[in-house]
Amino acid sequence: MYNIFTSILSLLNFVSMNVHANPNFVVIFADDMGYGDLQSYGHPSQEKGPIDAMAEEGIRFTHWYSAESLCTPSRAALLTGRLPVRIGMVGPNRVLWQLDAGGLPKTETTIAEELTQLGYATGMVGKWHLGINEHSFNDGNHLPVHHGFQYVGTNFPYGQNWKCDKEKFSVKEMAEKCFKYKNVTMVQQPTHLEKSTEEMVNDAKNFIRKHSRQPFFFYMPLLQTHSALFCSNKFCGKSKRGLYGDNINEMSWAVGEVLNTLKELEIDKNTLVLFISDHGPQLELCTEGGSAGLFKGGKGSVWEGGLRVPAIAWWPGTIPAGVVNHEIVSSLDVYSTILELAGKNNADSDGIVRDGKSLADLLRNGEPSPHDFLFLYCSDRLMAVRYKSFKFYFYTQNQSINSEELCVLGKPKDDVLTYLDCYGKDVTAHNPPLIFNVDEDPGENFPLSSLNFKEMLEKLHAAVRKHKSSVHKVKSVLGLKNESLQPCCNPPVCQCNYDTPQNLTMKTEL
Amino acid sequence: MYNIFTSILSLLNFVSMNVHANPNFVVIFADDMGYGDLQSYGHPSQEKGPIDAMAEEGIRFTHWYSAESLCTPSRAALLTGRLPVRIGMVGPNRVLWQLDAGGLPKTETTIAEELTQLGYATGMVGKWHLGINEHSFNDGNHLPVHHGFQYVGTNFPYGQNWKCDKEKFSVKEMAEKCFKYKNVTMVQQPTHLEKSTEEMVNDAKNFIRKHSRQPFFFYMPLLQTHSALFCSNKFCGKSKRGLYGDNINEMSWAVGEVLNTLKELEIDKNTLVLFISDHGPQLELCTEGGSAGLFKGGKGSVWEGGLRVPAIAWWPGTIPAGVVNHEIVSSLDVYSTILELAGKNNADSDGIVRDGKSLADLLRNGEPSPHDFLFLYCSDRLMAVRYKSFKFYFYTQNQSINSEELCVLGKPKDDVLTYLDCYGKDVTAHNPPLIFNVDEDPGENFPLSSLNFKEMLEKLHAAVRKHKSSVHKVKSVLGLKNESLQPCCNPPVCQCNYDTPQNLTMKTEL
Repeated sequence: MYNIFTSILSLLNFVSMNVHANPNFVVIFADDMGYGDLQSYGHPSQEKGPIDAMAEEGIRFTHWYSAESLCTPSRAALLTGRLPVRIGMVGPNRVLWQLDAGGLPKTETTIAEELTQLGYATGMVGKWHLGINEHSFNDGNHLPVHHGFQYVGTNFPYGQNWKCDKEKFSVKEMAEKCFKYKNVTMVQQPTHLEKSTEEMVNDAKNFIRKHSRQPFFFYMPLLQTHSALFCSNKFCGKSKRGLYGDNINEMSWAVGEVLNTLKELEIDKNTLVLFISDHGPQLELCTEGGSAGLFKGGKGSVWEGGLRVPAIAWWPGTIPAGVVNHEIVSSLDVYSTILELAGKNNADSDGIVRDGKSLADLLRNGEPSPHDFLFLYCSDRLMAVRYKSFKFYFYTQNQSINSEELCVLGKPKDDVLTYLDCYGKDVTAHNPPLIFNVDEDPGENFPLSSLNFKEMLEKLHAAVRKHKSSVHKVKSVLGLKNESLQPCCNPPVCQCNYDTPQNLTMKTEL
Repeated sequence: MYNIFTSILSLLNFVSMNVHANPNFVVIFADDMGYGDLQSYGHPSQEKGPIDAMAEEGIRFTHWYSAESLCTPSRAALLTGRLPVRIGMVGPNRVLWQLDAGGLPKTETTIAEELTQLGYATGMVGKWHLGINEHSFNDGNHLPVHHGFQYVGTNFPYGQNWKCDKEKFSVKEMAEKCFKYKNVTMVQQPTHLEKSTEEMVNDAKNFIRKHSRQPFFFYMPLLQTHSALFCSNKFCGKSKRGLYGDNINEMSWAVGEVLNTLKELEIDKNTLVLFISDHGPQLELCTEGGSAGLFKGGKGSVWEGGLRVPAIAWWPGTIPAGVVNHEIVSSLDVYSTILELAGKNNADSDGIVRDGKSLADLLRNGEPSPHDFLFLYCSDRLMAVRYKSFKFYFYTQNQSINSEELCVLGKPKDDVLTYLDCYGKDVTAHNPPLIFNVDEDPGENFPLSSLNFKEMLEKLHAAVRKHKSSVHKVKSVLGLKNESLQPCCNPPVCQCNYDTPQNLTMKTEL
């Protein structure tokens, strides 16, 4: 009797120890959504949605930093755990264009590749923006399938764009930047986006259902809330906050559908879901851009509004519910966090410098952040360092957003980005560094005196020296523009829609 | 058997019908706390506190307006349900001074007076700021006891003040504005505030315990977070956000103590608690002032930052938990709401024009706001009207807050208020009105064109005409300065502390 009892106990113990040995991971990445855009982050007219409910069931972060303030480098950093400067995702262009020959270098290892090695099923839908073609208009050499994603559903290799607005642009103009793929095959040019969030949700559900009995990783970078804004009939015209609010609500619905699917399949307790924005909002778009809340600056800038992002972690039963976490963490940490939780404990012993650190103990046990200093870049320039309550700026961007010039009746005149420069006349150097206490002064309005920070500045400079010595300049993979690489579904027309019923029998030429 | 059973059923039915016939009411009023100051309203470094938990257990309002953007008129409106312009709480001074002869007119009826008539026990602690003396330095003719408050505990007839900072001012300078009363008796001049929040909490607990078996109304206008900031040892130096954060946390603790007392006494299900800020934050105080979040303007202004305030309603079992309400409501509504809930259904049939309306159905049943148009004043000038998603400005204040001039290393140089003027060169008239969609554009950055609002403007003008015809100019009770009314505990010294043990035997001279 005693032996049977202890055997059962051991078995139960074994099961409980191993229930999380191979958790699933879902990473949902929002596009251009600002710190102040969600109701749970304080927006006064945005409706409460499933993302806010997710925060009530998980950990909501208030000091989560993006690795960069623009799409391409931010996404590269998320998937590799490495600063863009280490992997060539830097340069005056700052992002990849649809006809660029560059992409996320194959020498870099993504979360998806690592997890594939560990026996995970990996999949993605949505915005890629890490490269498309390399040598010809349809080689697709940089697409997700070449970076560890076994399944790739509805995807947008370039992403969402200002030019995807059929009210403003002709079909020909739209076709240049707006195209949809299924895996490596272009199926729509230009895009008809109304149903695209639903499509991505359906792909996500199917993937999760198919792999519910094996460990999986699903990456879901959504198109909303990047310009041009779009929504389905179910959401358009419904938000108090107008079109931007509709976009938030549809995106939030998509997140809710994923969480509900996990609950229905009863794998929610074995799945870590992260919802994170890629960087700050494009404030130049007036009421069609997001809100950075009380922060200064937006997309493109190193001010808090450019880099501090909403981020929520959800893992019922393993991480606490309704907790707000003030630790300084980064999207760079997602890589090491996921690999540690997946059981790859030697993740950081491969000789590759990773800037992110594992948040596994922070998530599960409320441990403090593993970061001392967080290094904040604009392209390849180290602009600022976050340390304790302080932000030390070596360089600041001088621009400010002029709503009167940019907006007519709350609508944007054009696709303007104010904070593009990391060098030049719009950037001011600070020596000693400009210092803000961003806990007491989150709006970065009140500079402090470096005279009161002598000891801390010594530590800072030592940390910066050490950090810089670890950064070796690599060739930029941005700006390798080549007109012949323009993605096109059926040259020379570059217009197609294989989604509509009458075209179901057509095959893409790619 | 049948008869006994039905009798019991009837009795149960009677009890359940009447359990809320005489609910208790607690109104907690914060001082100078901005829309963006609480974690639940989006502040990124403010700790989560009992006020945030209160929001999770109740209704959190996002479109709650104060009746005015300064202390005295805002408090007068709260207690009477009437716009300050109707009751003489207007004029260039905008607030009462400690040596003013004026006060809330006796001809006005407060919530406390009405509820006394209905058999309620009424009490208050905290900041009054609705008048002190009328004819002599110690007649106390305007004190709360003369306005329906049967019990008055630790109170500050003038309130908290910049001059109550013992680091900056001499005892003599402090004594002028900083004094504490117990009911009508001055007990401390100048104030030692460290333990004052705890004192008010103890008074509140004692009042609630004493009256737990009869219906009661308790009014608790706290001193925090008005300058000068202060906190007890338990809270000072603990917040990530610095001293202002400490003040929020102590105030939040006080709110939690009240809610816990109601729970302990098992009267929480029969008590409506409202937590509301009196108006926007004094942004001129740098990191020692609050945050209006993404709103423009602060204390003194008619911009959203001056008038939109955090407000939470809590009544477990009767109103829903964790709900965010976007309806346009006002502190003016507290009067009619409480009277309706207390069973005085003819509250509005006394021939007195009340600007507030009952929110009873909104709270209990999620009904829409009873307001069509909300009239927003600066002193006796109608500045703007809120209607649907829009705010129509007839006048705007032109000022902006210059942090560089006002602050040194994040600390304020002086007690400055930028938005004081309702008339004169710093105010611009708009005809047609300046229009913002404050749902889509809460920062009031993007004016709309009146050409698109022709029909709505006709409605607006009709509503304004009707409203104005109901407003009859009354004599201002502000600015009746009389040096001989300076409150003083023991002339001519005006310094005392009857709180300390060695003085327990002393009696106040008042």
